[in-house]
Amino acid sequence: MDPTFGTTLRTTIFGQSHSPAIGCVVSGLPAGFALDEEALARFMARRAPGKNRFSTARRESDRVRIVSGLNERGITCGSALCAIIENTDARTSDYDELRRIPRPGHADLTAHAKWGDSRDVGGGGQFSARLTAPLTAAGGIALQLLEQKGIKVCAHVAQVGDVTDEPLQTTDVTPEGLATLEGQLRILKGRATEPFCTLSEEAAGLMARRVDDARQDLDSIGGAIECVCCGVPLGTGGARSEGIQAAIARIIFSLPAVRGLEFGEGFRVASMRGSENNDAYGMVDGQVRPLTNHAGGTLGGIATGAPIVVRVAVKPTPSIARPQRSVDLSQGRECTLEVKGRHDPCVVSRAVPIIEAAVALAVLDSWLTYPPAH
Amino acid sequence: MDPTFGTTLRTTIFGQSHSPAIGCVVSGLPAGFALDEEALARFMARRAPGKNRFSTARRESDRVRIVSGLNERGITCGSALCAIIENTDARTSDYDELRRIPRPGHADLTAHAKWGDSRDVGGGGQFSARLTAPLTAAGGIALQLLEQKGIKVCAHVAQVGDVTDEPLQTTDVTPEGLATLEGQLRILKGRATEPFCTLSEEAAGLMARRVDDARQDLDSIGGAIECVCCGVPLGTGGARSEGIQAAIARIIFSLPAVRGLEFGEGFRVASMRGSENNDAYGMVDGQVRPLTNHAGGTLGGIATGAPIVVRVAVKPTPSIARPQRSVDLSQGRECTLEVKGRHDPCVVSRAVPIIEAAVALAVLDSWLTYPPAH
Amino acid sequence: MDPTFGTTLRTTIFGQSHSPAIGCVVSGLPAGFALDEEALARFMARRAPGKNRFSTARRESDRVRIVSGLNERGITCGSALCAIIENTDARTSDYDELRRIPRPGHADLTAHAKWGDSRDVGGGGQFSARLTAPLTAAGGIALQLLEQKGIKVCAHVAQVGDVTDEPLQTTDVTPEGLATLEGQLRILKGRATEPFCTLSEEAAGLMARRVDDARQDLDSIGGAIECVCCGVPLGTGGARSEGIQAAIARIIFSLPAVRGLEFGEGFRVASMRGSENNDAYGMVDGQVRPLTNHAGGTLGGIATGAPIVVRVAVKPTPSIARPQRSVDLSQGRECTLEVKGRHDPCVVSRAVPIIEAAVALAVLDSWLTYPPAH
Amino acid sequence: MDPTFGTTLRTTIFGQSHSPAIGCVVSGLPAGFALDEEALARFMARRAPGKNRFSTARRESDRVRIVSGLNERGITCGSALCAIIENTDARTSDYDELRRIPRPGHADLTAHAKWGDSRDVGGGGQFSARLTAPLTAAGGIALQLLEQKGIKVCAHVAQVGDVTDEPLQTTDVTPEGLATLEGQLRILKGRATEPFCTLSEEAAGLMARRVDDARQDLDSIGGAIECVCCGVPLGTGGARSEGIQAAIARIIFSLPAVRGLEFGEGFRVASMRGSENNDAYGMVDGQVRPLTNHAGGTLGGIATGAPIVVRVAVKPTPSIARPQRSVDLSQGRECTLEVKGRHDPCVVSRAVPIIEAAVALAVLDSWLTYPPAH
Repeated sequence: MDPTFGTTLRTTIFGQSHSPAIGCVVSGLPAGFALDEEALARFMARRAPGKNRFSTARRESDRVRIVSGLNERGITCGSALCAIIENTDARTSDYDELRRIPRPGHADLTAHAKWGDSRDVGGGGQFSARLTAPLTAAGGIALQLLEQKGIKVCAHVAQVGDVTDEPLQTTDVTPEGLATLEGQLRILKGRATEPFCTLSEEAAGLMARRVDDARQDLDSIGGAIECVCCGVPLGTGGARSEGIQAAIARIIFSLPAVRGLEFGEGFRVASMRGSENNDAYGMVDGQVRPLTNHAGGTLGGIATGAPIVVRVAVKPTPSIARPQRSVDLSQGRECTLEVKGRHDPCVVSRAVPIIEAAVALAVLDSWLTYPPAH
Repeated sequence: MDPTFGTTLRTTIFGQSHSPAIGCVVSGLPAGFALDEEALARFMARRAPGKNRFSTARRESDRVRIVSGLNERGITCGSALCAIIENTDARTSDYDELRRIPRPGHADLTAHAKWGDSRDVGGGGQFSARLTAPLTAAGGIALQLLEQKGIKVCAHVAQVGDVTDEPLQTTDVTPEGLATLEGQLRILKGRATEPFCTLSEEAAGLMARRVDDARQDLDSIGGAIECVCCGVPLGTGGARSEGIQAAIARIIFSLPAVRGLEFGEGFRVASMRGSENNDAYGMVDGQVRPLTNHAGGTLGGIATGAPIVVRVAVKPTPSIARPQRSVDLSQGRECTLEVKGRHDPCVVSRAVPIIEAAVALAVLDSWLTYPPAH
Repeated sequence: MDPTFGTTLRTTIFGQSHSPAIGCVVSGLPAGFALDEEALARFMARRAPGKNRFSTARRESDRVRIVSGLNERGITCGSALCAIIENTDARTSDYDELRRIPRPGHADLTAHAKWGDSRDVGGGGQFSARLTAPLTAAGGIALQLLEQKGIKVCAHVAQVGDVTDEPLQTTDVTPEGLATLEGQLRILKGRATEPFCTLSEEAAGLMARRVDDARQDLDSIGGAIECVCCGVPLGTGGARSEGIQAAIARIIFSLPAVRGLEFGEGFRVASMRGSENNDAYGMVDGQVRPLTNHAGGTLGGIATGAPIVVRVAVKPTPSIARPQRSVDLSQGRECTLEVKGRHDPCVVSRAVPIIEAAVALAVLDSWLTYPPAH
Repeated sequence: MDPTFGTTLRTTIFGQSHSPAIGCVVSGLPAGFALDEEALARFMARRAPGKNRFSTARRESDRVRIVSGLNERGITCGSALCAIIENTDARTSDYDELRRIPRPGHADLTAHAKWGDSRDVGGGGQFSARLTAPLTAAGGIALQLLEQKGIKVCAHVAQVGDVTDEPLQTTDVTPEGLATLEGQLRILKGRATEPFCTLSEEAAGLMARRVDDARQDLDSIGGAIECVCCGVPLGTGGARSEGIQAAIARIIFSLPAVRGLEFGEGFRVASMRGSENNDAYGMVDGQVRPLTNHAGGTLGGIATGAPIVVRVAVKPTPSIARPQRSVDLSQGRECTLEVKGRHDPCVVSRAVPIIEAAVALAVLDSWLTYPPAH
């Protein structure tokens, strides 16, 4: 299996939930970039579990150790960067039940079909959400590089159950519209470490309640993330199959729990007319610009200069405390499974920086592979 | 740009709307497969324009000429297959307006930003929907190979504007549920050449009316396609980034006009609980099987054995006859554009075989790269 | 199988000796380049068979038809370029012997082991030297682009049997040394269409005699090609695995009949000392430059600015008229084979433009992927 | 830069000479393989420096720590394997001279041209021969897997300066010939940890003397390695560009100090006739087999079943104690450089396991990507 993303910026993820360490190798980073390891640690902290009652109690240290790719002054040197995160949790010795009884909604049965007894079952093995940590690290580095180019990536919890956050204003790209979006991004930045990073504090409160309710019901709950990427210059990215859409799609659908992805108007286009969905062009500050942004920032896979807008559906955590029907593979007999341990009843909150990381990797790779002309 | 999809089955598309020819190169096809060129031509005909009043009047011949990859008996021989489709429409000599004034909703401005005057503007150049013809050819070949493995791919028009077709029954995977789905697929097969391939004839009639309405309003209209892939064995496909989801996503988001993609419950998962969305396991005919299929056929990127279920949002055709605001690039001046020529007011109908082709390419590549374990 | 070379400039070859056509798809060409199709035809003619008594009598037209990748003015437009060469020779109907009895030195037995009866046996199928025609076309395009950057690629027949040509002067990179090399390249340019493109006319005469002798003996004879690439700026190319050496090596060892490859001093380094082989640095015209060029133009895979020097061993044509021992696969019985048809007793002469094409593709790809830093 | 080799078995190398650690990520390993870490350590020891007076005195521990890819029982689990080697040598603080004055024969100037002051100069950065340690680790794992399939890879020092070892007997593939080769491989196995792994003890003694002489002269000396790979079944590997030759060539020419590569008869083919070089076929033990092996084990890139035979030219260590001419880049002034530190005057001996590792990676990848039919 090739767990690698990207064309120029190539990110390879390795590790399993209970292997000695997990990490990533990122090649193709431009040389000469002074990585801010403190900022990276802060970004990682947003994904880390155990920070509040809404996320799993596992005490992982997500400390990133960069073992290659920087010169003696901490600057990218043209060599592949490897970031390692040690798995400090001891391996448990008893995988017996996990090995025998696949958990519904997890990749246990499919992994068993693929690798049989060889698969690493502990903590979900390579399918564990823990593997989003090195991806977040790689994306955190990409985010720093993008910021230097004036490109920002920002996401929020758009939905948890029936509770929706105020949407980001992304279709009005007049100076006023963009100012509104800027303001929203400032709010989100200020709330980045909150349990629910939303525009509306009320929505955050309701989301917390929905998650508490789910937990009390020994259940879990899904949600959605909305992410924008502002400042990508017109002409960035390749055409179609090598375009920004395809690059984002590939990485987003590699993440655990993702079931849907929209760009711009997304599924709303199904009931729209061309006259509504087309973005007319005008002259803004002496530049040709789309005047609206139903397209969500790309046409033909190439950036229009308007914000890139992405919406991602995240399924409810499959690990729930309720008894569930499953099968004992060792005996070929149906049985009842009770998944032990404490689990996030909702991963949407922690997914916010992960989606930002994924989008950043795809956009930076597009920028490096197919930079905007002139 | 690398217009190539796939890992083992590698499909490269080439051509522009008005270049002498368009086509594809497909490498990695298993040797020993007797291609049915007649069946391929019938499949291509479903995508071809001009077959009824709902699609563009351009008289293209989509005749596929296979110039390599088969031995003297028409059997795949281990060498890359190249399929050529001649562009019989003469190049028009006057691209002046197209070159100067980008059409809203098309890739004209982004292509201009990328390649300037070098871009091929005629008929949309490499961004033309015409380029879905060679992809359909490649997918049509993949479909024949999948059928030999007992794998079927079938799509229908799920939505046009506010009209929705009856959904495919894909969550009940009991023998009864699967029988219902089988019946639906038979209906769709019988209606594959209809203007709107739907389960409900009434929906098809209403869709036709919506498209007629849009045309009369000098406008266009969007829609959605639902596609299932049945018979993929448990364990097929790679993990996560190399999984079936990521493979399908990359190719689907390379297609023109696509703005959204869902697997299984898709965005509905945002408001679901784990207990609803998880698919319990049971023993069916002596095999471990998911008893429901909210997951849409994959877990961790690997096939569960249940039908793979995909939903795609297709935007309204950007070419509309109404005057639209744009900019004359040669003068940097805003202007009004009237897109000439006859255009499909709705491409959803023609997109049905294209989505089937795209899914088939992704699934066959997954099968060849990461076959189900014994 | 993925018959593709390159990272940014990606060249895919397709076709078999007797398939309807052969060709190549080249993606990643910079947009805005005005291809000179006449010059390309002249370059192709150097490889084409049948031009003199030293090459096979088969009357192939190597006319290249470019069906995509150029805009209406013949300029690269950012879309993948596809070049087609029709196979005008009719397929012979009788492949029976070829299918049953593998020819020594050809890929017949290995292809049979791989694909059994499905393989295309006519004329050697995908293993035919005919497939170097589309590679030469792709390389011919690359050569034109390199020339625009001031980079020249030039090869000569360095050896046929025991006859060696005067070597290119490539280690002395003083202005005087380079002037000598320039003079040599001018001579080779003038003799590019000769049966044996050599520096020494006497050597060419002797080579012709050796080939005639081999033919009279119903035998064939091997040789070697030396190729230089001048003008590649210091810093061009990636490090090690992505370096120019590795890129050239991969493509050269994909060519038929190649058995050895050297850079710079090649195997002579085995008996050299560091003090002899190291290239000291000095200031030349205000630039840091290696003062000698034992390295053959690269260090760590990256161009030093000195000429890149490559030497390739080409085996004697395996098709010889003498009876040879082989096995009838249909009966598992040893037998005697007499290869029919007229064949080049020496392919070294025709290999000159092929090696130039291969080096050009590798160098241009290196340049596009890892351009020299400012 | 993408420091990755392979199609199915993908090996990515990371690290610099003085970065905190170096290592590799290997994806695509078959699941279910019980890695023998002891045997791997022994294999690594053969490459490690400091084991005798013929290699550099640097005291590196090449201890490999496998942090992912194995399950809790040490068995490959279908997840990418990451092996880490810590760099225990402290970074020196004074890189000033190295940064200013490029060493002849090293990649200092080319790296400077590429990355300027950002490059990691300590110990040669990413160009250090130290980076062959993780490649050797990856190859050591591949070797274990190949052994399970009955495939052996074995190399010896074929040449140092004017001293040549007895060649491996690789052209006679009769049972007697193969028995002779077997005997030679046994001898080499017994001498694998000797300073010079050769067939002839006398040659080893002379080689040692040549290296001592070079050292006394403050100089270094080159050499050549010969490597065979026995037991690869007929039909293994892809055609041409994806063949075993191209795969081996790409990885071999990524190694430091390599200047030449031959398969089978190598450059000798230039003066051979087809009747000498062709390998006739016969029936051996009821199987079709080449009766000789001038081809060196592949035809058309695909294994013939005969031993794969590779010869590699290794240049003399560029680090020599003699004063050399170079340029002070900070001042643009010529100067004299004396390279400090102790360096191997000959790396050929240590290169033996590295070449074995490289060949093993290429062959295993070919086997996994294009297994022998049936």
